[in-house]
Amino acid sequence: MAYRETEKMRQRKAAARQRIAECTYQCVTEGGFRTAKITRVAQLAGVATGTIYRHYESKEDLFAEIFRLATQREVDKVAEALAAPGNATVRLEKALRQFAERALKGPVMAWSLIAEPVDPKVEEERLAYRKAYANLFEQAIREGIEEGCIPDQDARLSSTCLVGAIAESLVGPLSPSQAGQETADETDNNDPLVNTIIRFCIQGLTGTRR
Amino acid sequence: MAYRETEKMRQRKAAARQRIAECTYQCVTEGGFRTAKITRVAQLAGVATGTIYRHYESKEDLFAEIFRLATQREVDKVAEALAAPGNATVRLEKALRQFAERALKGPVMAWSLIAEPVDPKVEEERLAYRKAYANLFEQAIREGIEEGCIPDQDARLSSTCLVGAIAESLVGPLSPSQAGQETADETDNNDPLVNTIIRFCIQGLTGTRR
Repeated sequence: MAYRETEKMRQRKAAARQRIAECTYQCVTEGGFRTAKITRVAQLAGVATGTIYRHYESKEDLFAEIFRLATQREVDKVAEALAAPGNATVRLEKALRQFAERALKGPVMAWSLIAEPVDPKVEEERLAYRKAYANLFEQAIREGIEEGCIPDQDARLSSTCLVGAIAESLVGPLSPSQAGQETADETDNNDPLVNTIIRFCIQGLTGTRR
Repeated sequence: MAYRETEKMRQRKAAARQRIAECTYQCVTEGGFRTAKITRVAQLAGVATGTIYRHYESKEDLFAEIFRLATQREVDKVAEALAAPGNATVRLEKALRQFAERALKGPVMAWSLIAEPVDPKVEEERLAYRKAYANLFEQAIREGIEEGCIPDQDARLSSTCLVGAIAESLVGPLSPSQAGQETADETDNNDPLVNTIIRFCIQGLTGTRR
């Protein structure tokens, strides 16, 4: 029977959807997408599993939304760092360093965002978000070339080299098989790791020994 | 009813399995994993779709095998280039250049291997093979550090920066949305593209302007 959705019903629906998203997010933060089973999310959210499918068409859609939420947060942080004062090289270095440090501080979520094998929908999001990061870096590289602190180069292509280098170099350190051995919380000494990655990236861009 | 498999039956079975693998490989080369539907593979191989599942547990297993076959070929090529004469920087540059050029010459397969969203089994293989590439690069970087042509650094970490930079920078140029615009066969001028990627990689390693 068709009926008009009241404002109150809309609000309640939106709140339920948000609660499901938050509980899924929490699961992924704790153990990656592989531990975010629908039954577990439903339990955490205090709803029936069927309710979840009233808000999300599929588990894949739910995961894709969580991926977007969490990744957009990181993209925003990179944009913020790149908008700070300083020449382009300094800003790029800060943005890359912050990205790596944030990942190492939240290694489970970071690994899930960067490398966890999930499903094709999440992989599609990964490709899209890597482009988003690259767009930000590209803009900064262009500014650096204009400022003269970065040699002339194909800014688009170099930006993707940056995205690849920083993401792939973090996969090993973040991977669950290494977790427990040396995570940020335990040793609190990720400086050499981060320094090596940043040096590679900035040298790659500038050709100047760091 | 249990029976003993004769040598002839074993051979026939192996031949059928290989034929299925070859036809799947051909599909992926032509249009990526997304076009390698089981019905199409069966048609090409001249078998019933059910036969495919007698040789492979699932489509995912079949795809993972094709991924391994095709990627191992590229890993071997990198190993070969790294084993050639010359100092480590020269060998790394050759290996990276050859990798990029081979990818751009077979863009559909290369994109499928590097970036096509497939399924978690293929993603697992991707992670494993990226490690295989990194292991090869790591060894060459160590040799370069000993030879003195590469500054002292965390060879393991730098090797993953190389893997990430070269793979990610090829995603855009290889992606189907760009295909037809400028693929290797049409313009035959991928030199500036490859040069930019190689420059970034070698500068990243050596900190010396190219």
